[in-house]
Amino acid sequence: MIKNQKKWLPICLSLAVVTVMFLLAGPLTADEGMWTLDNMPMKQLKEKYGFEPTPAWLEHIRLASVRVGDGGSGSFVSPNGLVLTNHHVALGQLQKVSTPQKNYVSDGFYAATAAEELPCPDLELNVLISMANVTAKIMAAVKPGMAANKALEARKAAIAAIERQSLKKTGLRSDVVKLYNGGEYWLYRYKKYTDVKLVFAPEQQAAFYGGDPDNFTFPRHDLDMALFRAYEKGKPAVVSHYLKWSANGAADGELVFISGHPGSTNRLLTLAQIQFQREYSYPMRLKYYKRLLEVAKQYASQGMEQARQAAGMIFGIENGIKVSSGEYDGLKSPGIMEKKAANEAEFRKLVEADPKWKSAYADAWEQISAAIEKQKPRMKELYYRRVPGLRLGSIALQIVQYVSEIKKPDGKRLEGFHDSQLESLRFRLFSRAPIYPGLEEAMIINSLQLQLEELGSQDPFVQAALGGKTPEEAAKALIAGSKLSDPDERKKLVEGGEAAVENCTDSFIVLARKLDPMEREMKKWQEDNIESIARPAGEKIGQALFAVYGKNAYPDATFTLRLSFGTVKGYAMNGTIAPQKTTFYGLYDRAASFDNKFPFNLPKRVAEAKDKLDLSTPLNFVCTGDIIGGNSGSPVINRAGEVVGLVFDGNIESFMGRFFYDDTANRTVSVHSAAIIEAMKKIYGAEKLAQEILGE
Amino acid sequence: MIKNQKKWLPICLSLAVVTVMFLLAGPLTADEGMWTLDNMPMKQLKEKYGFEPTPAWLEHIRLASVRVGDGGSGSFVSPNGLVLTNHHVALGQLQKVSTPQKNYVSDGFYAATAAEELPCPDLELNVLISMANVTAKIMAAVKPGMAANKALEARKAAIAAIERQSLKKTGLRSDVVKLYNGGEYWLYRYKKYTDVKLVFAPEQQAAFYGGDPDNFTFPRHDLDMALFRAYEKGKPAVVSHYLKWSANGAADGELVFISGHPGSTNRLLTLAQIQFQREYSYPMRLKYYKRLLEVAKQYASQGMEQARQAAGMIFGIENGIKVSSGEYDGLKSPGIMEKKAANEAEFRKLVEADPKWKSAYADAWEQISAAIEKQKPRMKELYYRRVPGLRLGSIALQIVQYVSEIKKPDGKRLEGFHDSQLESLRFRLFSRAPIYPGLEEAMIINSLQLQLEELGSQDPFVQAALGGKTPEEAAKALIAGSKLSDPDERKKLVEGGEAAVENCTDSFIVLARKLDPMEREMKKWQEDNIESIARPAGEKIGQALFAVYGKNAYPDATFTLRLSFGTVKGYAMNGTIAPQKTTFYGLYDRAASFDNKFPFNLPKRVAEAKDKLDLSTPLNFVCTGDIIGGNSGSPVINRAGEVVGLVFDGNIESFMGRFFYDDTANRTVSVHSAAIIEAMKKIYGAEKLAQEILGE
Repeated sequence: MIKNQKKWLPICLSLAVVTVMFLLAGPLTADEGMWTLDNMPMKQLKEKYGFEPTPAWLEHIRLASVRVGDGGSGSFVSPNGLVLTNHHVALGQLQKVSTPQKNYVSDGFYAATAAEELPCPDLELNVLISMANVTAKIMAAVKPGMAANKALEARKAAIAAIERQSLKKTGLRSDVVKLYNGGEYWLYRYKKYTDVKLVFAPEQQAAFYGGDPDNFTFPRHDLDMALFRAYEKGKPAVVSHYLKWSANGAADGELVFISGHPGSTNRLLTLAQIQFQREYSYPMRLKYYKRLLEVAKQYASQGMEQARQAAGMIFGIENGIKVSSGEYDGLKSPGIMEKKAANEAEFRKLVEADPKWKSAYADAWEQISAAIEKQKPRMKELYYRRVPGLRLGSIALQIVQYVSEIKKPDGKRLEGFHDSQLESLRFRLFSRAPIYPGLEEAMIINSLQLQLEELGSQDPFVQAALGGKTPEEAAKALIAGSKLSDPDERKKLVEGGEAAVENCTDSFIVLARKLDPMEREMKKWQEDNIESIARPAGEKIGQALFAVYGKNAYPDATFTLRLSFGTVKGYAMNGTIAPQKTTFYGLYDRAASFDNKFPFNLPKRVAEAKDKLDLSTPLNFVCTGDIIGGNSGSPVINRAGEVVGLVFDGNIESFMGRFFYDDTANRTVSVHSAAIIEAMKKIYGAEKLAQEILGE
Repeated sequence: MIKNQKKWLPICLSLAVVTVMFLLAGPLTADEGMWTLDNMPMKQLKEKYGFEPTPAWLEHIRLASVRVGDGGSGSFVSPNGLVLTNHHVALGQLQKVSTPQKNYVSDGFYAATAAEELPCPDLELNVLISMANVTAKIMAAVKPGMAANKALEARKAAIAAIERQSLKKTGLRSDVVKLYNGGEYWLYRYKKYTDVKLVFAPEQQAAFYGGDPDNFTFPRHDLDMALFRAYEKGKPAVVSHYLKWSANGAADGELVFISGHPGSTNRLLTLAQIQFQREYSYPMRLKYYKRLLEVAKQYASQGMEQARQAAGMIFGIENGIKVSSGEYDGLKSPGIMEKKAANEAEFRKLVEADPKWKSAYADAWEQISAAIEKQKPRMKELYYRRVPGLRLGSIALQIVQYVSEIKKPDGKRLEGFHDSQLESLRFRLFSRAPIYPGLEEAMIINSLQLQLEELGSQDPFVQAALGGKTPEEAAKALIAGSKLSDPDERKKLVEGGEAAVENCTDSFIVLARKLDPMEREMKKWQEDNIESIARPAGEKIGQALFAVYGKNAYPDATFTLRLSFGTVKGYAMNGTIAPQKTTFYGLYDRAASFDNKFPFNLPKRVAEAKDKLDLSTPLNFVCTGDIIGGNSGSPVINRAGEVVGLVFDGNIESFMGRFFYDDTANRTVSVHSAAIIEAMKKIYGAEKLAQEILGE
């Protein structure tokens, strides 16, 4: 599953900062690239496919594309605001609208009428309305001779100002997006939908058929789909740009496009950065994930209700482990480092050869290496000093920081608290989604134990977090002493401002007040010592790339709208050929082959529908389009702009796609448009909804 | 497909000679081993599976097991001599009984009555009647102080004598078999059936579904089966030992046995031998195969009838290329050589540590290395100096050698012409199977061109073969000037003896007379310089193994009866799990997934039977049993001695099984017993035959 990393699977933020990303140097592979819509590879498309998207075509695709929540993609598929995405993108909301009595994750959901559609507690949808290059403005903020940390401050203030002014002027969500490593900055404006309802989802066992073993593999048999509806002013949103449906889908060899929001790629890290990832980041992250999984499974094993509560989390961790292990194994496999070293040497040689380039850019690599070296001794602190637990701890910390940050001038605030970000932040902060005390407690115990093990009992952060108790005692006390599970309590604190927070005796707020200064110290240290060095160095490399190779390239993924393209095409696999598609026959084969045992069992409705279905209907298919986590839920589109499929995964051969693209075996896995209609009509009795999609 | 190497895919004989094989030193992996029936790993079986085969059980399995032709296995499955084997083992006979009017390979065959059963032109079946250890007798023939070549001669004479005397005494086919590298010699006596009829075969497209791409892979969907009937005195052979049928087959995790005739393994070559294989044998062989495939495909492309004639050959070459490429890639992959070197170093250290062992065995490795070095300069000659063409050339050479060899004392003859071997030799030599002049010509041209390229125009063998002509001219003249396609002509020459052959003007006989002395010189040179050194050295290593590790091991495969055992069990594959079985659903899925395109198209009858079949019937399955080429057609047997499946392949992960066994992913692929009955009844209307198998 290629949803973007979940928030509660904390990415090593400190690493993200030094991870200077830039484009692939040298010639592109055939169908490579996650392109911004202002810079499509027209020549390539025309030469290989004889197709040139018009500005109108691109605008239509852009306005029909939807960013879903904080990790997924989607598209409008009817004029009445119907949004198609993946089941696993919808999973969080499915979990939140479920109850001990009604489990929509395991049982699926279908609202046959508008009245039955279920409001989502905290799902935000974004549609990219406009894009403008603001690089010059941001560069102008940094004056010659400024100290590194002052320059960083000035840059951040300029970004916040642009966002704030845009929000004020347009009322639209306004994000300044760093592209090409900071070679360019763009202002992206989004229309926002926060009144979103759940319309349809199959059983998770149909959506995620084959479970963790089949995850990231192909041939595959997953109905990984869900439908939401965007509302405006209490009514279904009327959208003029939505994608029409292709009932037959794409043929073998056909050109297709993927419109979505890839989260992050590291296509050409500096060699030093890759080595750092291989030696520090991946081992730490995998160790952490595995421990987390153990705890989540242990909790789930206590009963049906606990299993229900932890289901989404377990899915996410297993997914994360599979991706990270795949990437880590790839980085350790022979030849990769040598290849990267050769690419970098070639690029640096070209930079060195031109005196102007040399003086402007050549020192960037050493600067990044130096920043990495500086970070190494603090790695463990930066990784493990986190507010313990799943949601309550971070909510508390956000509240504590919120009330003090908003008093500062916008440009001086911590990232996440700028004016332009506050509305989305409050939307999440006051979400009415349920919080499960038992699961919170288990996760707090685990966080505290890990901190003890990794940082030692003398670490001030650990001492503050434990307050002289054992992890179990501390967790119990925190849960018992807090009312933050209630969104109204949170609201009261935020509205009460600094005074309310200062006087608050809620256990989590008390803890957050103690940990906040240490959090801030770490952030400050990173800004002064790492980011202020690595960020301008990254910009230099981005500029060097433009200088050396021109702008016929795409920026690394940044969870902003991109268009990829490719061919529907099988590939060599395990000694034979993987076909370009699977069929419903394959689903029943796999179930029978495993004697219908989990995770290869069929949901009851699917098993019973066997004789009603046309089993030769294509179920999943693959294409060469270039994607990564965050693209989950992207529509696959033909030349006519019709939906032929729904992206939900990459194959196992695509793991190294984070670092480079190789179209011999790297494939995007999608649900076939024909399977969606066949299943909705014949398995789920959702005939009416299918008709809405088909425009009938 | 794991049939033994076809005769016309010439194995580099010279290599076979120095290939000293021995057993895996050190502890065995769980289900490892191709065991002789006198030395089953009873302790292992009892401990892991709680099952100890009784002598009666073993005898029954042995007498129900059949060696099929020169490369396959099979079993009696009815009291009326019905023999179950693979379609690809039967392929040669199917091709031989086909005509331009009736293609049983592509269309399948079913004899609903005894009268319709089709006589096979040259298929010999062997059943192992008895086994006796004759090591002492053969060792006694070599007297201390004998020169190496004299010792070899004496050993060979002793073997011939034992075989001759046994044949004379019992009338049974009598083969002295070298086991454990010559650590032991055994006399195996076989009951022979040469009156064999074809009873049933599906279409090749059903048997070999997925063709070359799917070959050696799993999940798989092949109905790779055929049925012959052994006749005696014009009537179906009455056999008291035959295998009963298990209609449901084996369950996941069940213990199963495989009784068959694995052709050859190289489980613990000396390091020098493996390096030799990697650097010389595999590259030469692959180059040769690829050239052969090109020529065969070129011939087949000329028309339907040419395609029919070359079909079996193309199958065989593609199969050979896939195996050899897999083994070669394995040998080149990192770590393999290091692992082998470490194993050998450990074994040699143990030998060196005991003064008695040291003086008896320690020099064997250096002797083998020396023999290899001696062979290297003559590699090309030894590989390429072969009678050109497919069948006529070798028939001619066999006739020329036959008439002179049989005049010598048995012990002094060339291998293949001993008294005990003559009957089988004549059976093949006088076969009425059709010979296709066009295909012969294409193959002769290819042989001669290759010889020119590899040995040069000055090579005396090349000069003799070409006789001043171009390869095309020479081939045309050979075909035009020969009547050897007629078996009666061959018979006349053999019966006419040396005089008839000397006076014969048949073009192939004339050529064979010219090439015979050079052939003999090469054989003699190899005996004197290579085999006389390497053979006793190999024996020493075999004896050293017994000395160091005891006889709780199995000998390398020698195309003699072996019993393997294992568990029905899936495995980790390509990021997910391969199930232990596939079903008919999977067959229809694969066809639909590839839009019914070759080689994934369904034969008409199979496509039409879709709604009659229970699609959840298991089709193929995998187990951990240890097999290799030659095991094709082996029955898979449960504890009750019933057939649960029919071995037809190893998976792609099993290629390195030639060198070592690894049960994490190495799997035997079999047709499920339920699929055989389901298909015979519902696709092929062979209800009566199915009843015979079921004992109904």
